[in-house]
Amino acid sequence: MPTITFLPDNVTVQVEDGENLLAAAAKAGVYIHAYCGGDGVCGKCKVQLAAGELRSDRANLKAEEYDKGLRLACQSAVVADVTIRIPEQVSKNGKSLKAKPKTTRAISARSLDHLIGSWQVAPPVEKRFLALEPPTLEDNVPDLQRLMRAIKKKCHDCAEPTYDHPELLMELPFILRQANWQVTAIMLRGKRAEEPDRIIAVEPGDTTGNLYGLAVDIGTTTVCGVLINLNSGEVIAEASAYNDQIGCGEDVISRIIYSQRPGGLKALQEKVVHTINAVIDTVCTKVMISPSDISYIMAAGNTIMSHLLLGLNPKFLREAPYVPTCSHFPLTRAAALGIHAHPSVRLFLYPAVASYVGGDIISGVHACRMYKSPELTLFIDIGTNGEIVVGNEEWMVCAACSAGPAFEGGGIRHGMRANAGAIENFHIHPQTFEPMIITIDRIKPCGICGSGLIAIVAELLEAGVIDQQGKFNRGLDHPRIREGADGYEYVLAWGKETLMGEDIAITEVDLDNLIRAKGAMYAGYVTLLESVGMTFDDLDRVIMAGNFGAYIDLEQAICIGLLPDIDRDKFYYLGNGSMLGCQISLTDHVRFRERMIVSSLITNLELSESAQFMSHYMASLFLPHTDMSLFPTVQAKLPEGRG
Amino acid sequence: MPTITFLPDNVTVQVEDGENLLAAAAKAGVYIHAYCGGDGVCGKCKVQLAAGELRSDRANLKAEEYDKGLRLACQSAVVADVTIRIPEQVSKNGKSLKAKPKTTRAISARSLDHLIGSWQVAPPVEKRFLALEPPTLEDNVPDLQRLMRAIKKKCHDCAEPTYDHPELLMELPFILRQANWQVTAIMLRGKRAEEPDRIIAVEPGDTTGNLYGLAVDIGTTTVCGVLINLNSGEVIAEASAYNDQIGCGEDVISRIIYSQRPGGLKALQEKVVHTINAVIDTVCTKVMISPSDISYIMAAGNTIMSHLLLGLNPKFLREAPYVPTCSHFPLTRAAALGIHAHPSVRLFLYPAVASYVGGDIISGVHACRMYKSPELTLFIDIGTNGEIVVGNEEWMVCAACSAGPAFEGGGIRHGMRANAGAIENFHIHPQTFEPMIITIDRIKPCGICGSGLIAIVAELLEAGVIDQQGKFNRGLDHPRIREGADGYEYVLAWGKETLMGEDIAITEVDLDNLIRAKGAMYAGYVTLLESVGMTFDDLDRVIMAGNFGAYIDLEQAICIGLLPDIDRDKFYYLGNGSMLGCQISLTDHVRFRERMIVSSLITNLELSESAQFMSHYMASLFLPHTDMSLFPTVQAKLPEGRG
Repeated sequence: MPTITFLPDNVTVQVEDGENLLAAAAKAGVYIHAYCGGDGVCGKCKVQLAAGELRSDRANLKAEEYDKGLRLACQSAVVADVTIRIPEQVSKNGKSLKAKPKTTRAISARSLDHLIGSWQVAPPVEKRFLALEPPTLEDNVPDLQRLMRAIKKKCHDCAEPTYDHPELLMELPFILRQANWQVTAIMLRGKRAEEPDRIIAVEPGDTTGNLYGLAVDIGTTTVCGVLINLNSGEVIAEASAYNDQIGCGEDVISRIIYSQRPGGLKALQEKVVHTINAVIDTVCTKVMISPSDISYIMAAGNTIMSHLLLGLNPKFLREAPYVPTCSHFPLTRAAALGIHAHPSVRLFLYPAVASYVGGDIISGVHACRMYKSPELTLFIDIGTNGEIVVGNEEWMVCAACSAGPAFEGGGIRHGMRANAGAIENFHIHPQTFEPMIITIDRIKPCGICGSGLIAIVAELLEAGVIDQQGKFNRGLDHPRIREGADGYEYVLAWGKETLMGEDIAITEVDLDNLIRAKGAMYAGYVTLLESVGMTFDDLDRVIMAGNFGAYIDLEQAICIGLLPDIDRDKFYYLGNGSMLGCQISLTDHVRFRERMIVSSLITNLELSESAQFMSHYMASLFLPHTDMSLFPTVQAKLPEGRG
Repeated sequence: MPTITFLPDNVTVQVEDGENLLAAAAKAGVYIHAYCGGDGVCGKCKVQLAAGELRSDRANLKAEEYDKGLRLACQSAVVADVTIRIPEQVSKNGKSLKAKPKTTRAISARSLDHLIGSWQVAPPVEKRFLALEPPTLEDNVPDLQRLMRAIKKKCHDCAEPTYDHPELLMELPFILRQANWQVTAIMLRGKRAEEPDRIIAVEPGDTTGNLYGLAVDIGTTTVCGVLINLNSGEVIAEASAYNDQIGCGEDVISRIIYSQRPGGLKALQEKVVHTINAVIDTVCTKVMISPSDISYIMAAGNTIMSHLLLGLNPKFLREAPYVPTCSHFPLTRAAALGIHAHPSVRLFLYPAVASYVGGDIISGVHACRMYKSPELTLFIDIGTNGEIVVGNEEWMVCAACSAGPAFEGGGIRHGMRANAGAIENFHIHPQTFEPMIITIDRIKPCGICGSGLIAIVAELLEAGVIDQQGKFNRGLDHPRIREGADGYEYVLAWGKETLMGEDIAITEVDLDNLIRAKGAMYAGYVTLLESVGMTFDDLDRVIMAGNFGAYIDLEQAICIGLLPDIDRDKFYYLGNGSMLGCQISLTDHVRFRERMIVSSLITNLELSESAQFMSHYMASLFLPHTDMSLFPTVQAKLPEGRG
């Protein structure tokens, strides 16, 4: 891994080979002007190559500039140790400007293993090769009994296995005889240790070498699938696809509304199945196996996605008092739902806790094992519906809070999903108030995604461009700060540097929406902790799950009050906990069985009409909070605090 | 119950009110000439009314005969105590001729209760009315959980109930709310005591007053259904119908052959389902309930019938070594098979032991509780496929022997099923060799059914008309004994007295077939007993199951060697054990669970290619047996014995 040294003041950072220099500077906390997101057109991010080499594009630079060692940071890839000097006009008092490094990600890499623990390759589905004794007149027990006898012989202390659907029985006599009594039984281990194993299918010959399982994360927006070789535990293919239901509504509420139309529920069920099938086909094609070679599917989704997949009407999930049909979903035949799978294959769907605390959260809690640790843990998944779990090995409480769509770009004038061109990182020059914007895929900016929004608000707050109420400093005279249709706003990128040719700005309305969103999350943490008589001081760990967590900066998130201001070493980033839980459950039946503990320990708290929650929410509608004693480190760096 | 006294020698018998006098005489062992089966046309059965009154038809009697007190026995119903004098020309040495009374039936009435024991009304399916607390924000657990909580509240020491198919979940939220949270849960008790109960359906309001179950005996020929009010345990309707599969073959072997045609298996499955549906519709119409009001179906059938009902291919049941697909059939949704039933309703099919010892036998063994008694019991079901079980509470062995179709009228020139016009009882005048024939429904004879055949052979043997090899006494000169197309024969009825106008006779070929049939059964008993080192002397009880058993006369059956010559008090007649087991299981879940003992104790022995069996079979091809020391009471009354 190459090392970059930024001059004038020797900030060093190690980066992946081929890392983009502008992105590396942003991550290292080194400010460079950048207006076009990294597209190479604004020409602002010129830096001086002081030593070493870069792989740079010469376009957008004059020949003499290039020869002098000038490079566009956004057009340069780091391939070896290199020393870079930041131009004087962007440095301050002879020092390159600090920015906050991405702290969360670094912590996650260090401690993910510790968090989720190890697991063995002993999946809940297994194959057993059996060489049966052919029947004789002295020993003419039924075919099924012969099969079971052979299975039992291989496992002395096992209970009598049970068997499966009549379809198995219809084929069994023919498979046994055609295979000359040499067959492979596909067995499902009992859901609990004391339950007998179950024969779900029988294949001719010895097929034990091929055993595959699929982990599926059924998101409202995206469905992800991971194909695992269950003999080795290895992930052998991954794929994802947009949930086809998006056409019926972007969020879960609009999906519920759609489901109430005539035929709506059926359409939604078919659409998510269609998406899952697309994912299955993609992973199978990648490794050249047939979908019918998959022997088990573990899936997790929020409660609405789970209901829709099973064809359960989600009507009452949306109406107070928000009652799901069930929380433990039946172990279903995947094929019965229309999924491309062998008729014997089961689809396990992680149980939900409540209408808005679903199987995706339970899967994440299951993966991170907070229910097995004495440490008091706050588990959070930030999104339109923020889910929060607090507890340890003895008890857990959970709640959902409707943060609104700001973190997913909704309700923000230039908000967008985290796609190419979304501003994902932002720094501001504390004197000039000029921006450094980094977009996803380094193309011209076309909007702001959730992590970018957090960065922008945190930077504007720290620079004193906005105040703690989310209002622009009326005293600042700067071309980027102006009054627009939605009141005051800061222009992040001028039209000439954006993809659509119009200015991209953040407005006071946007700020207000963000404050409500983060306020709801924070009020959720406090209310849940309070419900069990605890405070942030009691917390040993904060685990962030979900895709969004991967992209937010810990310091920025604390700065705006989205996360509590506590010891940074207590924060962990889990990644896609929903998928992780599915993968672990698919690979290790002992871990799989442990999920029952999660269900038994967890209690749901309904925040939506709680007076305590409302009171904490009101107190949180401030950057970072009305009670600054809760945010001492933020206090210290805000203009007022520094003042 | 009126008493009849037969003169000259004061034979008395108690009969049901309205009993036919000819039939009563036959049962009492009083010989009366009767050529036309009881149709009133031959005029042979004239008797003298000595005291009391009869309800008699005057047709076929001259007025002066009637006035003299002469009556046609076959046209007279006994309605009060009466004394009857048998005409001198049919008596012998001043005594009315003895015949053997129907012993089995008398024994059965006495001891059936003792045999099958009592059972409680506590069916494996039950209804529980639940008044649920409506959900609130403080208590918004999922609908299913709320339901389960209420169920558990009613039963403190029960395990958490399980729930059923997704269809239940699809409806549940709507049923609960439409019924204002007042619902009835239909529960299936765990198959074993330690298994949790299962919610199979939920109905709005309180429907606990209506709980019905159906017991079904799926015979190769006839499907019988009994509808039971499971709240009271009462049988409320019965129906039966010919198995629609008959068109595809009369016996199980021809059904198996048919099943191997393209589409044959599916056709047979649909035909038996069609028959079951006809039975269901009939019983439901009788008591004006809907088929969907039935909550559980218990069925039993032989192994081939069971395979065909479930759509399992019976191919290998017919090929050595005669291996069924399975012996424990899956608990199936009746509706999934096409049966008119609520989608939640389970069809339980009694397990089989082997290809030719099926669930009908297990159900019978289950009903008579031989597996709970220390007494050594021989359980037999006589038919084309004779099934035999020997054992007690410690062990049981079973076997099937192919007796051939003689007992069902097959392979007998004038053989027929036990329908109207079949000769079902027969006595012969020991001097005149003239017959007394009684037909089913007392119409002109049209053939001989199994019980008639046994009676005929026993009487011919005792009268010395045939010898122990089943050959006619060539020395007898009698118009009814003649040489026909199949060798010697005895004319039971002349053409003018028969339904079709042609003579009905029994031939030496018929006798040979009967001897093979009874020989196979007897050889089966001996081989099974021998296999466990026992003899008939060790037997405490002989239990006869099956419809056929109801109609055969114990003494006659022993006389021809179909049953062993042991203490008559050891014989019991169970009736339709298959149906009885289903009824008991449907009504009492404790008895139902006990069936597992039957399965665990019973071992099958394959007789078909057993040398021991063949040797015993050869020794049995004699009337009653080559070893007469086995039949001392028969020895004493045969012409040679009486010598």
